[in-house]
Amino acid sequence: SCSTRKKKACHLPKLPASVPSSRTQMASTSPEPAATETGDSVKIRRLQIADRERGFLPLLSQLSSCPDLTESEFAACFADLAALGDDHVILVAEDPAAAPERRILSTGCLFVERKFLRGGGKVGHVEDVVVDAAARGRGLGLRVVRRLVEIAKGAGCYKVILDCTPELRAYYAKCGFVEKGVQMAVYF
Amino acid sequence: SCSTRKKKACHLPKLPASVPSSRTQMASTSPEPAATETGDSVKIRRLQIADRERGFLPLLSQLSSCPDLTESEFAACFADLAALGDDHVILVAEDPAAAPERRILSTGCLFVERKFLRGGGKVGHVEDVVVDAAARGRGLGLRVVRRLVEIAKGAGCYKVILDCTPELRAYYAKCGFVEKGVQMAVYF
Repeated sequence: SCSTRKKKACHLPKLPASVPSSRTQMASTSPEPAATETGDSVKIRRLQIADRERGFLPLLSQLSSCPDLTESEFAACFADLAALGDDHVILVAEDPAAAPERRILSTGCLFVERKFLRGGGKVGHVEDVVVDAAARGRGLGLRVVRRLVEIAKGAGCYKVILDCTPELRAYYAKCGFVEKGVQMAVYF
Repeated sequence: SCSTRKKKACHLPKLPASVPSSRTQMASTSPEPAATETGDSVKIRRLQIADRERGFLPLLSQLSSCPDLTESEFAACFADLAALGDDHVILVAEDPAAAPERRILSTGCLFVERKFLRGGGKVGHVEDVVVDAAARGRGLGLRVVRRLVEIAKGAGCYKVILDCTPELRAYYAKCGFVEKGVQMAVYF
């Protein structure tokens, strides 16, 4: 493995290092602590292939351009990402009480980058965090992001980074993030 | 594959989609255009496992904490990254005229992230760009970064992003980057 150096002790509940248990469901993380922030029945879990039918893509389209994917296109994308195992984790917040096609209320993604720096260190990248417009203010996004940060820590990352608009600085500060630099981009 | 949508035409020289040709050398990219910026003999190429002996880690240590890796630790890290194929590219600038243990004068890395957004789109992430303190001002970092951007475009990425300090905005603007947001981080 690339991470050959001794890890710092982890003081958060250990999440199991898991692999996808099937081609239709990414491995679930350990049971979540009580939803103290929301008090509702929404569960945070890893993305399942069936989430295409539960509103996952329409939710993403609230963040950026997200054309619909056919069932087979979705499956291919899911398989590509599942092949990365625990180096790529997509979490969703599901409300089992909502209409079947609108159950996914929030999502966020973590991928783990390996480096030569830091003794073969790992960095977690948080991407594509969004909360359904009708479900904001319930702390769902924060639950997703905090869980992603826990997973990154459990995986041995020495830091987790994300890019956002300046308006979201205070939001991510609630999850322990501090401003570090500027994000630059080239669009093709 | 995750990228199921039609790509925009690419107007840059096409770089071959290549796979590592052995366990000791990552696939080389196509021959580089003439080094018009530097006029020197420095070559930009993919990282080779032998670059551990050419000063690759001491160079990285000018960017961030980079403890030495034993030969086997380095090989393990190299293999982990090589397994990602063209989704992870480390370029180096090598000066064949320099002392053997100090030939790597610049490096930069690109990894390709796959998304459900943008029809199963790809984003290039540029990381760990550094130029040896004694070799700055020769345009080596810009050559590395521009090549990484070309590779990302050739791979079908719809954008390339990186994080940097505010002082480096003008530097990356020379490679076509514009400021997009803020970088936030949690350190463990």
